[in-house]
Amino acid sequence: MTGKITGSSKRMMLFSGRAHPELAEAVARELDTDLVPTTARDFANGEIFIRFEESVRGADCFVMQSHRQPLNKWLMEQLIMIDALKRGSAKRITAILPFYPYARQDKKHLGREPISARLVADLLATAGADRIVSVDLHTDQIQGFFDGPVDHMHAQPILTEYIKSKYSTENMVVVSPDAGRVKVAEKWASDLDGAPLAFVHKTRSNTVANETVSNRVVGDVQGKDCVLLDDMIDTGGTISGAVGVLRNAGAKTVLIACTHGVFSDPARERLSNTGAEEVITTDTLPQSTENWPNLTVLSIAPLLARTINEIFENGSVTTLFERC
Amino acid sequence: MTGKITGSSKRMMLFSGRAHPELAEAVARELDTDLVPTTARDFANGEIFIRFEESVRGADCFVMQSHRQPLNKWLMEQLIMIDALKRGSAKRITAILPFYPYARQDKKHLGREPISARLVADLLATAGADRIVSVDLHTDQIQGFFDGPVDHMHAQPILTEYIKSKYSTENMVVVSPDAGRVKVAEKWASDLDGAPLAFVHKTRSNTVANETVSNRVVGDVQGKDCVLLDDMIDTGGTISGAVGVLRNAGAKTVLIACTHGVFSDPARERLSNTGAEEVITTDTLPQSTENWPNLTVLSIAPLLARTINEIFENGSVTTLFERC
Amino acid sequence: MTGKITGSSKRMMLFSGRAHPELAEAVARELDTDLVPTTARDFANGEIFIRFEESVRGADCFVMQSHRQPLNKWLMEQLIMIDALKRGSAKRITAILPFYPYARQDKKHLGREPISARLVADLLATAGADRIVSVDLHTDQIQGFFDGPVDHMHAQPILTEYIKSKYSTENMVVVSPDAGRVKVAEKWASDLDGAPLAFVHKTRSNTVANETVSNRVVGDVQGKDCVLLDDMIDTGGTISGAVGVLRNAGAKTVLIACTHGVFSDPARERLSNTGAEEVITTDTLPQSTENWPNLTVLSIAPLLARTINEIFENGSVTTLFERC
Amino acid sequence: MTGKITGSSKRMMLFSGRAHPELAEAVARELDTDLVPTTARDFANGEIFIRFEESVRGADCFVMQSHRQPLNKWLMEQLIMIDALKRGSAKRITAILPFYPYARQDKKHLGREPISARLVADLLATAGADRIVSVDLHTDQIQGFFDGPVDHMHAQPILTEYIKSKYSTENMVVVSPDAGRVKVAEKWASDLDGAPLAFVHKTRSNTVANETVSNRVVGDVQGKDCVLLDDMIDTGGTISGAVGVLRNAGAKTVLIACTHGVFSDPARERLSNTGAEEVITTDTLPQSTENWPNLTVLSIAPLLARTINEIFENGSVTTLFERC
Amino acid sequence: MTGKITGSSKRMMLFSGRAHPELAEAVARELDTDLVPTTARDFANGEIFIRFEESVRGADCFVMQSHRQPLNKWLMEQLIMIDALKRGSAKRITAILPFYPYARQDKKHLGREPISARLVADLLATAGADRIVSVDLHTDQIQGFFDGPVDHMHAQPILTEYIKSKYSTENMVVVSPDAGRVKVAEKWASDLDGAPLAFVHKTRSNTVANETVSNRVVGDVQGKDCVLLDDMIDTGGTISGAVGVLRNAGAKTVLIACTHGVFSDPARERLSNTGAEEVITTDTLPQSTENWPNLTVLSIAPLLARTINEIFENGSVTTLFERC
Amino acid sequence: MTGKITGSSKRMMLFSGRAHPELAEAVARELDTDLVPTTARDFANGEIFIRFEESVRGADCFVMQSHRQPLNKWLMEQLIMIDALKRGSAKRITAILPFYPYARQDKKHLGREPISARLVADLLATAGADRIVSVDLHTDQIQGFFDGPVDHMHAQPILTEYIKSKYSTENMVVVSPDAGRVKVAEKWASDLDGAPLAFVHKTRSNTVANETVSNRVVGDVQGKDCVLLDDMIDTGGTISGAVGVLRNAGAKTVLIACTHGVFSDPARERLSNTGAEEVITTDTLPQSTENWPNLTVLSIAPLLARTINEIFENGSVTTLFERC
Repeated sequence: MTGKITGSSKRMMLFSGRAHPELAEAVARELDTDLVPTTARDFANGEIFIRFEESVRGADCFVMQSHRQPLNKWLMEQLIMIDALKRGSAKRITAILPFYPYARQDKKHLGREPISARLVADLLATAGADRIVSVDLHTDQIQGFFDGPVDHMHAQPILTEYIKSKYSTENMVVVSPDAGRVKVAEKWASDLDGAPLAFVHKTRSNTVANETVSNRVVGDVQGKDCVLLDDMIDTGGTISGAVGVLRNAGAKTVLIACTHGVFSDPARERLSNTGAEEVITTDTLPQSTENWPNLTVLSIAPLLARTINEIFENGSVTTLFERC
Repeated sequence: MTGKITGSSKRMMLFSGRAHPELAEAVARELDTDLVPTTARDFANGEIFIRFEESVRGADCFVMQSHRQPLNKWLMEQLIMIDALKRGSAKRITAILPFYPYARQDKKHLGREPISARLVADLLATAGADRIVSVDLHTDQIQGFFDGPVDHMHAQPILTEYIKSKYSTENMVVVSPDAGRVKVAEKWASDLDGAPLAFVHKTRSNTVANETVSNRVVGDVQGKDCVLLDDMIDTGGTISGAVGVLRNAGAKTVLIACTHGVFSDPARERLSNTGAEEVITTDTLPQSTENWPNLTVLSIAPLLARTINEIFENGSVTTLFERC
Repeated sequence: MTGKITGSSKRMMLFSGRAHPELAEAVARELDTDLVPTTARDFANGEIFIRFEESVRGADCFVMQSHRQPLNKWLMEQLIMIDALKRGSAKRITAILPFYPYARQDKKHLGREPISARLVADLLATAGADRIVSVDLHTDQIQGFFDGPVDHMHAQPILTEYIKSKYSTENMVVVSPDAGRVKVAEKWASDLDGAPLAFVHKTRSNTVANETVSNRVVGDVQGKDCVLLDDMIDTGGTISGAVGVLRNAGAKTVLIACTHGVFSDPARERLSNTGAEEVITTDTLPQSTENWPNLTVLSIAPLLARTINEIFENGSVTTLFERC
Repeated sequence: MTGKITGSSKRMMLFSGRAHPELAEAVARELDTDLVPTTARDFANGEIFIRFEESVRGADCFVMQSHRQPLNKWLMEQLIMIDALKRGSAKRITAILPFYPYARQDKKHLGREPISARLVADLLATAGADRIVSVDLHTDQIQGFFDGPVDHMHAQPILTEYIKSKYSTENMVVVSPDAGRVKVAEKWASDLDGAPLAFVHKTRSNTVANETVSNRVVGDVQGKDCVLLDDMIDTGGTISGAVGVLRNAGAKTVLIACTHGVFSDPARERLSNTGAEEVITTDTLPQSTENWPNLTVLSIAPLLARTINEIFENGSVTTLFERC
Repeated sequence: MTGKITGSSKRMMLFSGRAHPELAEAVARELDTDLVPTTARDFANGEIFIRFEESVRGADCFVMQSHRQPLNKWLMEQLIMIDALKRGSAKRITAILPFYPYARQDKKHLGREPISARLVADLLATAGADRIVSVDLHTDQIQGFFDGPVDHMHAQPILTEYIKSKYSTENMVVVSPDAGRVKVAEKWASDLDGAPLAFVHKTRSNTVANETVSNRVVGDVQGKDCVLLDDMIDTGGTISGAVGVLRNAGAKTVLIACTHGVFSDPARERLSNTGAEEVITTDTLPQSTENWPNLTVLSIAPLLARTINEIFENGSVTTLFERC
Repeated sequence: MTGKITGSSKRMMLFSGRAHPELAEAVARELDTDLVPTTARDFANGEIFIRFEESVRGADCFVMQSHRQPLNKWLMEQLIMIDALKRGSAKRITAILPFYPYARQDKKHLGREPISARLVADLLATAGADRIVSVDLHTDQIQGFFDGPVDHMHAQPILTEYIKSKYSTENMVVVSPDAGRVKVAEKWASDLDGAPLAFVHKTRSNTVANETVSNRVVGDVQGKDCVLLDDMIDTGGTISGAVGVLRNAGAKTVLIACTHGVFSDPARERLSNTGAEEVITTDTLPQSTENWPNLTVLSIAPLLARTINEIFENGSVTTLFERC
């Protein structure tokens, strides 16, 4: 038969944007490899320039970026990196977004609004991403915004293992800070030895139009050790309000746990002073425990490394999140 | 300037599949028009044949179908109708799915599962649909599965108006049958004069693997008039179980309300015998009150007709669902 | 160079829908493999649920479905399976449709009709199919409806080998039941030792509007052994009418052969009583010879197995159908 | 409401490539308009340059091209014209191909062949065509190669009206030159007062491998007036061979009719000398009757003009071809 | 005929992002309309939220954004606005980017680089933009990066009119600051009464690797009034270097002109001190003349307003830039 | 795990269109392989037929075509070959266009023009090309017209090496024939030991409207050895005019160099008589030195062969053109 035949092998390459290189380096260490040397810089007017210092032809490429502030810049950087890989003949491109940006805008609340979480999926696909890896999406349905494989990993086992290793679950109650997270709280309750559930019911103020006031706990928290959880904490307003409501309702202690510690101002101050025993989060976004003694940061790197390896080796990621 | 210039007008045309023509006819009456004459029949091997008896060139076409049993057939019929409109030069095609099929499969619960709700959106787009109208999607995020305008209408005002016209809200509590609907229940509570909330917490049986048992009410229902709500009721197992749990928890009365009364066997029997005061639903799917005296069916046709009219006239649909 | 390099292998996986698992199992046996364990069930309202019990990452996946009644359901099931494979990171997805549904609607007969055979190709592509395998498409042009590789296999050699092994071709004439199949009949005639051709010319009744009456044989059948062929037989009306016309024209015997024995009611009765020597078909659709002694079913499984193997091994399928 | 509102009108613009401007001009006259002034020229290396001399913004544009020799050039010119219209903000672009190029390559005869007729449809769509108008496609299925409206017009009524106005149908038989056109011949027979059918059966030579020899007439032509038809006549080999076979079989006279008179060398010579009474065709391609006294050319321009007008006015084209 | 028919009108709506609302307001004034009221704000973590306060159904929408610092944020805002318009059923969406971001990255200089200017076009199309309006693209070819109409406007006439109104062209020479802009300089020379040309030839330093040094003027500038032009000036390094080279080569005076005054630090300082008579730019980006007495800002708003109006009215934009 | 696993290898196959098989054969020799046997012929009406004589399943296919006259035919042939590969299950298809056709139409000069260079990229993608290889694109931005990898090779090193091997660079000046090529000339100057630059400034005639007259040299050429370069020479009008201008300006000698020697009539005559020392080009298009003694043709085949090999082996093409 005409032509030339040679054996075939496959190569994994790991790339990192500039938003949170420490996480990418930790993942690379777990995978026993190095990040691909990359030139990335800003032009004076803010345009980003990218060049990879090695050929990416035929490689199975993984592009990590953590979407911290300034979030739009880091998203654009990741899109540009993906475009460069596509044009450089990468065989397959996996975008890794430990914290999926714009996840909260996953529906139109009223008319004439965007669905930015879908837009982000479309932008990634347009740039050239073949698949997505993310952790604890704001809603599971975001998986369906991308027309291809999405590996949706869960930090819950990491968080609940930690809690169980340090606290007794006997007197525990799992609390959702609002009505929309009760389903997730139910999964946590199951992991925490079947603890009971409660949630904070937000009702409208009668005196100020459109103002939401957290003022009722549904479920029994009196004398209980509350685990208050959320997928992400931004300014901490909802969560610290919920702590107050729980305390008023007689809670004994409150632990706060979330996957994505965004901690925009004034979250650090609010959560330090709220009286919670401990605030537990992961490093999907860069974290600092400086001046915040009761913040605990668990690393997501081993989970991401195992996921990347399974994707590269065509193994099963399911076992990694089977419990959820 | 070369060429011919003429004035321009626009024409609305309304089409119905064979699953639930009564609803389409009711909508046509509201719009003061007729359904477009359509030949639709099955070949002996089950293939569907469609032909429209009038030219559809340049028309603004609305294609209604209710996805009752056999659901896959009616979905395929709607796709074929849309294909015929596209090939017949319709200017714009709006698919109306009062009950969006496969809405429950809106995420992968485990690996190697489909996201069928996204697939349905993609199939509609592939056939040629430019926009979608639906009522009370199982989750709001399904809007984002379609790459174009989705008018997501809500039956809640129709249902709550009816309840308030017939029952006092004074002793009422709004109950979600599971943890995933608490957010919706919260909206209902707001409509029902700020009634308090409760939900049924499903926990796993210790004796039978993977068996879910409804066994705790979170929130206070003792001596209360419960409004138990859901977006859809299929076989009625969850709902009738919830009624039992509420009664055990001391509920005084139970009303059941849902937008989509699928009522697959044995729902009619279960819900007739469950002791609920009344079961209230809409006609997004065909309904019969025969032998089911406490079933109340409210019509969705006026809402759909107003929506179609606003779309055709480029008006604002938002005002129609502003309250949600 | 940065990154990790490993050797590369490829894996074939074979899946079956629920419409005709016997055929898929026969193919699996030919390939010396097993069908991938799959959970498939219907929800009470008719929605289909699918989950594969093994990882499909990186695999070369073949999804078989036979489109028997209820045809729209089985088509939807195949689409959902393909969607699940796409989202589960299959490397390549081949949809196998031994009998291609809606093949007869391959053009607009009049305005405002769909081209459902094209729609089916588009739906498969949208769900995620990379290629299609089918047998004896109603018209060859359907290959062009799919924007990718289509392996179009032919059952003719299987059928004509059987006929030649059992009957003498000396006094044989090949008959097309209508004007549109004469080209195919010509290929059969070539396989059957250059037998002469004839066809049934349908003319309109003068008394009943739009009624087609089969009433002239073009070509010589007097005293001949007729082989009456078609790609598919549905209700058998056309074919049994043709047998009558042939008998009236003096045919000595009539054999009936088709690739796709749809046999919708009342085909079994009609064809049992028509006086044909034998009815020969294949198992592209499930068949039963119970109470139909002169039905012969030849298996298509070896042909499909060889095709799958050639696709997987990057061999040449052409040799498998070179004779057509 | 914010913004500016004005009345809306629509404008038709007609464009012609350089292959056959006479036909486009005839169509323009029928429509009572002019062709849009267009600069079209070849660069020295064969690249085509196009510029329209008037704004096309918002216009309903119709682009005519006849695909004569050099066919690939004229196809490319039409694609470039469509691209220029798209980039010039035309509202809608209709490609008119009276003779659809590459229509014969509508399937893979063997493996590793293109389906060029589908490719042509895809190229038109890629350039920016929203819809296609063509006349007597080689097979009806080509309609399904384009993902949008195709208006498939038929010249048959023009041709059969002419024949009936000049010849008696009493002793007539309609003959297909090969097995693949019998279905079309059947439609002609119906138009020609129910005339009987015949066709030429091509069989393989036993002495020369792969050589096709036309040597049997199926059907009765002895003493008959034969109408030999085809959709297109290229070099005339098949048709003039068929005339010989008919004469040998005792035909009294032979008329030849086709929609597309390609008449590549040596068709003019062959058909002039074949002894046929008359050769009838249309001007979908440019024709000359010089030195060919028994060639009759009927104009397709009125049919195209009516089609364009119905498309522009959103009327029904169906009535124009209802009889087919 | 079935259905409802009404007259049809069209509505223009003008939207502005938050980067440079003054320009959008100036355009609105020219068009005698108002900007559509829009809610736009940043969440604490940098995510942008958008909602339009009026229905956009069926409207011809124009979305202006000036891509100043932080450029990636403003690009993302424009994409989100377009997504919201698409989902809100706008009829047509035109993205207006007076300064096209990432225009300099319009090719791969070496391997493994992105083509970010193409990526920007693709992102706009993915979000839902139907057409683009921009001013003085870095290279004309960027028009071809978008698969649809691009109206490419030119500020050159505005700039050269101003220069001719204030300065004599008699002793003038037009100077390109590098080899890549000579073609543009040629057009300017033609506008400036046929002034001669020159350019600065950059050569590499022999002592420092990869360092570019501007050190030769090609063309005659001795004793001349130089007009030094560029499409954009960012940090001003190249331009101020060129002024020095021109002065060394004996230039009498130097005027600096550019369409896009990006003026990133330290451009203001550099250009104030370079000894140029005057720096002339436009307001495609926000400008301030505070503390920069010899900066002149000409408004691009009338040009944009006329362009929008011609697009809306389906007129010809060509006449607006015919001279270029 | 279910299924079959086998080792995996990869196969390169090289195909050639009929425009310039000698180049493809030279490339095949460099790669130590053969061209895949291919049937390619024209039907009488100009339609092209293609069939590959070997299976292409799973192969890494490279399709070479040189776009000489008749250029549109050869482009269409390449598209048809790509379509056949796609439908024949090639794994990856690389289109090799040593001379990219329509490259000069890379922007709209005025309104209502096509961007044919983008159209060509889109047509290649539609047919099924996954990547493109080309040499010395008219403008680098054409890379961005294709949504995938483009390997843009440069003949400059081949040409400058030859010049340096034969001529002294001491007295040399590099001349661009117009303002648009000065940037390229700058790169040549760098390769030719830092030679100085000049270009020909085209100004408009005052007496004849729209006529361009080459009449000024910008830069110093008096007594110099000029290297006049261009990417392509078509009819040679611009270049031979430039030679005249250079001679008038006192140039001592003139060398002409271009990558693409299109040499349409009357280029051979013009360039033979212009008095240039030597005309140097490559064989991206077929060349003949017959009757043109001072034409030198350098082969591009080794460069293409190395490129193909690097693509197949996933190596780095960058090193092949690093110097540019």
